[in-house]
Amino acid sequence: MSANLREPGGEASSRVTRQMHVMGEAARRAARRMAAAEPGEKNAALFAIAEALTEQQDAILAANARDIREARGKLDAAAIERLELNAARIERMAEGVRQVAALADPIGSITDLNFRPSGIQVGRMRVPLGVVGIIYESRPNVTADAAALCLKSGNAAILRGGSESAHSNQAIAAAVARGLTDAGLPREAVQVVETTDREAVGAMLAMPQYIDVIVPRGGKGLIEFVADNARMPVIKHLDGVCHVYIDESADRDKAIAIAVNAKTQRYGTCNTMETLLVAESVARSILEPLAHDLLQAGVTLRGCEATRKLLGPEIQPATDEDWAAEYLAPTLAVRIVPDMHAAIDHIERWGSHHTDAIVTENVTRARAFIRAVDSASVMVNASTRFADGFEYGLGAEIGISTDKLHARGPVGLEGLTSQKYVVFGDGHVR
Amino acid sequence: MSANLREPGGEASSRVTRQMHVMGEAARRAARRMAAAEPGEKNAALFAIAEALTEQQDAILAANARDIREARGKLDAAAIERLELNAARIERMAEGVRQVAALADPIGSITDLNFRPSGIQVGRMRVPLGVVGIIYESRPNVTADAAALCLKSGNAAILRGGSESAHSNQAIAAAVARGLTDAGLPREAVQVVETTDREAVGAMLAMPQYIDVIVPRGGKGLIEFVADNARMPVIKHLDGVCHVYIDESADRDKAIAIAVNAKTQRYGTCNTMETLLVAESVARSILEPLAHDLLQAGVTLRGCEATRKLLGPEIQPATDEDWAAEYLAPTLAVRIVPDMHAAIDHIERWGSHHTDAIVTENVTRARAFIRAVDSASVMVNASTRFADGFEYGLGAEIGISTDKLHARGPVGLEGLTSQKYVVFGDGHVR
Repeated sequence: MSANLREPGGEASSRVTRQMHVMGEAARRAARRMAAAEPGEKNAALFAIAEALTEQQDAILAANARDIREARGKLDAAAIERLELNAARIERMAEGVRQVAALADPIGSITDLNFRPSGIQVGRMRVPLGVVGIIYESRPNVTADAAALCLKSGNAAILRGGSESAHSNQAIAAAVARGLTDAGLPREAVQVVETTDREAVGAMLAMPQYIDVIVPRGGKGLIEFVADNARMPVIKHLDGVCHVYIDESADRDKAIAIAVNAKTQRYGTCNTMETLLVAESVARSILEPLAHDLLQAGVTLRGCEATRKLLGPEIQPATDEDWAAEYLAPTLAVRIVPDMHAAIDHIERWGSHHTDAIVTENVTRARAFIRAVDSASVMVNASTRFADGFEYGLGAEIGISTDKLHARGPVGLEGLTSQKYVVFGDGHVR
Repeated sequence: MSANLREPGGEASSRVTRQMHVMGEAARRAARRMAAAEPGEKNAALFAIAEALTEQQDAILAANARDIREARGKLDAAAIERLELNAARIERMAEGVRQVAALADPIGSITDLNFRPSGIQVGRMRVPLGVVGIIYESRPNVTADAAALCLKSGNAAILRGGSESAHSNQAIAAAVARGLTDAGLPREAVQVVETTDREAVGAMLAMPQYIDVIVPRGGKGLIEFVADNARMPVIKHLDGVCHVYIDESADRDKAIAIAVNAKTQRYGTCNTMETLLVAESVARSILEPLAHDLLQAGVTLRGCEATRKLLGPEIQPATDEDWAAEYLAPTLAVRIVPDMHAAIDHIERWGSHHTDAIVTENVTRARAFIRAVDSASVMVNASTRFADGFEYGLGAEIGISTDKLHARGPVGLEGLTSQKYVVFGDGHVR
């Protein structure tokens, strides 16, 4: 759980582990320089990285073609689509890096600086975390995105991408390194692990002396592995079992629009609705037409008994497995509940504390729902799909957290920082 | 590292572990009620607890006398002194609980509620963490202090005190339970572990499904054990190797006053200075008279070679062990350094990132020191002894953290809370 400074056991470390330690030491040194970097230096590096990405487009596309060639037959079409780069995608990557440059620099900001009765002034200064480790799967754009966010927040980064995008990642890493050195910052500020040996991941997770926080991005298997094995803090979310509850005072049109959007706008995202809860008294007036729209959109419904009674026996019965399911697919669990309290109980029991919404015109129940539901994002009359760093105004997102400590919900630059206390006196003693 | 919801392995759990699970389930239930408690209800409970502590003074003193009787011969005089209660100490405990009632209620506070381009409003609401576990050693007043802080911040608490104060803790727990029930809140909101079996600690650390965060308070052995074994986040600091650096532009009188205070005001606290760093150019003018004052106060100095050359060979030579030492005693390591950069390098290499101070009249170096030193508290012209929740205006302190994530430095009510996102729309979809 907590950072432990002892070296990993006495056993002779392998070559890969030794390599990772060398990267770790270099990252630690670079982190100190990055923490002291001026906003202008960091922005110059970001613009230089964006430029290098465009300039080195041919090399990046060639590397990507090699990844794609090697992936054929091993990955399915959707995975290959995620892996694939083209000129437009590289330009979008560069634009993303420029957007991070445009964000306010969080580092060094001092807040709440107040005089205390003793005469000292006490405030809090925002500082980088140090070295951020990011372990991710196929999409190579994460290499540029994550590098930009870590750089802007004054951290050093060690990035470990999926083996299927290894060549693309190294080509992008070359552009990042070029931008850093052009701006006079250490290229070790962003290191992309070269080896595709799985041992490198284990070594990263076992070096809290070099890595302050790990962010896993990818499928549930990866996130679970990282969470179970990391010896440093992890910023992560495991599941997105998100709910929309349609209250007895819901506006019919809003309820239908929100539920349809929350389910069908994208099926594979963590903020997609997976269970719909409907107050008994509006089941006929709202659930009936809503179910029609959802079925039209190609969504399979699995309902509780009351739902099946209302919608017909062709709706499959929902079991406990459905209440717990993150389908990431055009399937939706539907339950009719007596009232809001039953909906909240359902969410507390089966939800994953990611994002849950109520649709209601009743202000008292809206307040109560917001207060009682213990999720990273709680919404009134809005689609769960809004739970996203860009939509929340964080500018960019390194991930989403369903943990309670440190960062909760979409994690932007601030989640890659910490605050220290600063104290100013004039010879004050106790 | 991360909360893991699986039950501990398949082995048959023992009676103690089963008891702890029963407490954990009760705490989870109570936490939901506490999260919804109104400020007035929580304050009523705090005042009722303070009253019960005073009313039940005789029972508490009798229990304490029993602890003291059993401790004789087993604990040294200082430990017995820490254990001992009297009418004044109980009154101070009650007063502490009333002071917590007077603090602003952090729960439910919504900040940064802004409209986004999409039309939704996004803000952050402060919420309790859930269930806080506190594992502590001899001082029985921690039982009342910790109960009050957890209660005010809307959490449930499971408290495990030292076996030497078991009777006192149970008597205080009875007063806390009385206060809770008088105010209509569940008595399970604060549970004090009854058994003195060490297995109870292991069971607590292995139940992340019931305990959201653990705060160990006590000696280094306890904290290390908790940090190494907890399966949930830990708020802790291991070492307080605090530095005062006397810069070449230091005011002589302020430097002497601050260094003497930082070392001698209390020897056994984590924010006591353990190493003094002095710029070469002011060693003669400041270190010489300062050393005189420190020796007068009964402090043993261990110096670098330059220090011994200046102060005389009767000063013991300092080794690497001294630079790393948290003496918690009237001993001080002293090093003469060429300049501030060398001082910062020393602090980064040997310090524990707890509290470090510079004494200087030079604003440029003050700014640079504040920026570069990566410690929970960084000070200019003030004694390290100020690193304390009360001095910082937190009202009370549950502990001090030298970790970077979540809470850093003195941890008050806010460190026992988290923030969730709240989103308000009017039928908004993406």
